[in-house]
Amino acid sequence: MSRPKPLSGFPEFLPGPRMVEQFVLDRLRETFELHGFASIETRAVEPVETLTKGGEIDKEVYTVRRIHADDGVPDELGLHYDLTVPFARYVLENAGQLQFPFRRYQIQKVWRGERPQEGRYREFTQADIDIVGSGELAAHHDVEIPLVALDAMERLHTDLGLPPVLMRVNNRRLAQGFYTGLEIGDTAAVLRIVDKLDKVGPDRVSELLVSEASLTEAQAKSCVSLATISSADETFVDEVRRLGVHTDELEAGMEQLAELVRTAGRYAPGRLVADLKIARGLDYYTGTVYETELQGYESLGSVASGGRYDALASDGRTTYPGVGFSVGVTRILAPLLGKQRLTVTRPVPTCVLVAVDAEETRAAAVAVASQLRQRGIPTEVAPKADKFGKQIRYADRRSIPYVWFGAGANDEVKDIRSGDQVGADPASWQPPSEDLRPRVVENWDE
Amino acid sequence: MSRPKPLSGFPEFLPGPRMVEQFVLDRLRETFELHGFASIETRAVEPVETLTKGGEIDKEVYTVRRIHADDGVPDELGLHYDLTVPFARYVLENAGQLQFPFRRYQIQKVWRGERPQEGRYREFTQADIDIVGSGELAAHHDVEIPLVALDAMERLHTDLGLPPVLMRVNNRRLAQGFYTGLEIGDTAAVLRIVDKLDKVGPDRVSELLVSEASLTEAQAKSCVSLATISSADETFVDEVRRLGVHTDELEAGMEQLAELVRTAGRYAPGRLVADLKIARGLDYYTGTVYETELQGYESLGSVASGGRYDALASDGRTTYPGVGFSVGVTRILAPLLGKQRLTVTRPVPTCVLVAVDAEETRAAAVAVASQLRQRGIPTEVAPKADKFGKQIRYADRRSIPYVWFGAGANDEVKDIRSGDQVGADPASWQPPSEDLRPRVVENWDE
Repeated sequence: MSRPKPLSGFPEFLPGPRMVEQFVLDRLRETFELHGFASIETRAVEPVETLTKGGEIDKEVYTVRRIHADDGVPDELGLHYDLTVPFARYVLENAGQLQFPFRRYQIQKVWRGERPQEGRYREFTQADIDIVGSGELAAHHDVEIPLVALDAMERLHTDLGLPPVLMRVNNRRLAQGFYTGLEIGDTAAVLRIVDKLDKVGPDRVSELLVSEASLTEAQAKSCVSLATISSADETFVDEVRRLGVHTDELEAGMEQLAELVRTAGRYAPGRLVADLKIARGLDYYTGTVYETELQGYESLGSVASGGRYDALASDGRTTYPGVGFSVGVTRILAPLLGKQRLTVTRPVPTCVLVAVDAEETRAAAVAVASQLRQRGIPTEVAPKADKFGKQIRYADRRSIPYVWFGAGANDEVKDIRSGDQVGADPASWQPPSEDLRPRVVENWDE
Repeated sequence: MSRPKPLSGFPEFLPGPRMVEQFVLDRLRETFELHGFASIETRAVEPVETLTKGGEIDKEVYTVRRIHADDGVPDELGLHYDLTVPFARYVLENAGQLQFPFRRYQIQKVWRGERPQEGRYREFTQADIDIVGSGELAAHHDVEIPLVALDAMERLHTDLGLPPVLMRVNNRRLAQGFYTGLEIGDTAAVLRIVDKLDKVGPDRVSELLVSEASLTEAQAKSCVSLATISSADETFVDEVRRLGVHTDELEAGMEQLAELVRTAGRYAPGRLVADLKIARGLDYYTGTVYETELQGYESLGSVASGGRYDALASDGRTTYPGVGFSVGVTRILAPLLGKQRLTVTRPVPTCVLVAVDAEETRAAAVAVASQLRQRGIPTEVAPKADKFGKQIRYADRRSIPYVWFGAGANDEVKDIRSGDQVGADPASWQPPSEDLRPRVVENWDE
């Protein structure tokens, strides 16, 4: 086999960057579990008919079939393109055995057969959280979910050095109530056009609202005014009121959004703004909607988003409302790792290399390594009996910080960074805790 | 959508069993890292031509294509059916950026489009470790790899209550050297027939060796005698010697196997036997080969296996020899979880439920929960303001051990198992460490 080439759209990491990814996934899992979310995994495949019901994404489904399937037999399975469709199916399938409200997180790969381009992948990892109720789900979960997401993203920032986030939040009820107050009928059309505000600007949105959604000039002006409101505190409420529209739905939506802004101000100050232009492409959101940018990486677009859907799933008798959030892990990491903004202190777990000076003493080296591992110290034994200098070089090339010499006879351990070498007992020696595991290093200065 | 049905061959777990799986994967990862193995993940797909080169498995490949691909365009990608083929490709692709010997572990799903049956899955999780060299790889790694695997399996036994294992080991050089000493030409044919020993018995194997591999009666008898040798210590060496065959290759293979048996006796007593009938189906093994049974679950067959291959990969100029081991995680867990041999103390991470007595006090409950989480205690806030009894019932249905009452005003925490309720400070209260996280419980008595 000659040297294979990477497949476009299918990112793979070298061991160092993969370690950063592991740390990120560990941190996400830890945070989700601290908030009481249980893990599930769903199979990679769903019936194609389930996957293609959704609308636009169906063009990107990868179908799957056995290589010796008869020609002419249609593909019946496809790879999931998100974690929401399989989760909805899982809830229906297992409803009798789940406790509602059911809180789950799910960290898995998803696949989309789209044209690969900057920031788009054909295989990528998502980390989703959702709370789903049976029949009903209280509105306070709309406040809870983005705070869990912010807690997770903040840990990635403070613990691992990822950029801080800015979450932009809106509420579909607010917009819906406002439009109804203006006596606009086709609110979905308005949402779709308002969603283009950043791309085409307020004047063009106004024009489109008139020409495509049949709004009056005055209605269009009000809609644009609403969409340009944004505040990091509750002042957005007064700004909306000044537009002179009043409906119960609008009030309810504003109160929900204000509650979220207030709570976020307490637990995640500076990380969340009410931004009334946020619409999200997907039609099934019915309450709060969220988007999240990485500060300094706004061009990546939203790297984490979600919202409230009143019908995540339904089996005809019972409807399961949900509120959730999805973090695009690959979308966040691939650019940061590609530019080496985040690296690790070493691309191997190994903290100690036990040197072997002659093959006859390998057993003694293996015994020392075993003792160190029993106390949680990642250790490997030198692959080759060799001279002092070569053993050091082996460790150095992998950034392994310690080399153990004289195993079982004259035990000494050398910190190859400082050159310090001291006598050590394999039954009790402990490295400084910051050396025990590889750590993530930020490189923002280059 | 009406209630969906499971897809045969694609196992999915409820949150409780999934938690057991997570603990198993965590333990495997931890052990592999303690031995200095770095994680990699490869994409789910490989070019079909790579996947179908191998031989028998190619019938089971799942091909993948975009749903709107032109008819008549052949599928070019398939889902990987093991982690060895993608690892070999990864090594070739990244050889210039890896340090050899390269130690990696890889825990991922694989897919095989085979007919589903007891113990066979179409999607399942494997956990692989391999050490691969560039050009050469020392023989002591043949001893190291099974010991890492035994270390991992032993932790699953002692920490999580999985059954203990018995590893059966052989060495291809030993068999090869023996056959050569008997002047047998087609040793591959002999290996294939000897592999059937357990299924058809020694007499039938003797017959087949004569009729299908053209051996003399005497040669066949010797081969069967070799294959029936098995010992938990080095006595197998004397038993082989008594068969009166002597070649350097045989001696080298015996010495390797004896070294492994000796070392395993020290680090994993009672868990490994030399068993000279083990051949493994796959042709590429060239040195040590291993199979592993779960004690008491022998009918599952080998749940973890591997061996030495002198050419894991080659780019024409450089050959990469390797030695590895693959644990069939789903194969081990699905039966144990299905029979509820392993369960968890609770199917949610939550240790504390903070009660809410009226919606107006929710903010105080959220504040207490946040304080507890900051100290690493998984906590959720009651979804509904409700009476004392209903809050207890909510926790009880999920086996959450503690309910926190009077948040921010009159803080008390109740152990709902004992009924004990005591005053508590959210800034310092700590549950007993055995309650902090869910634990695996063994149920062998039913």
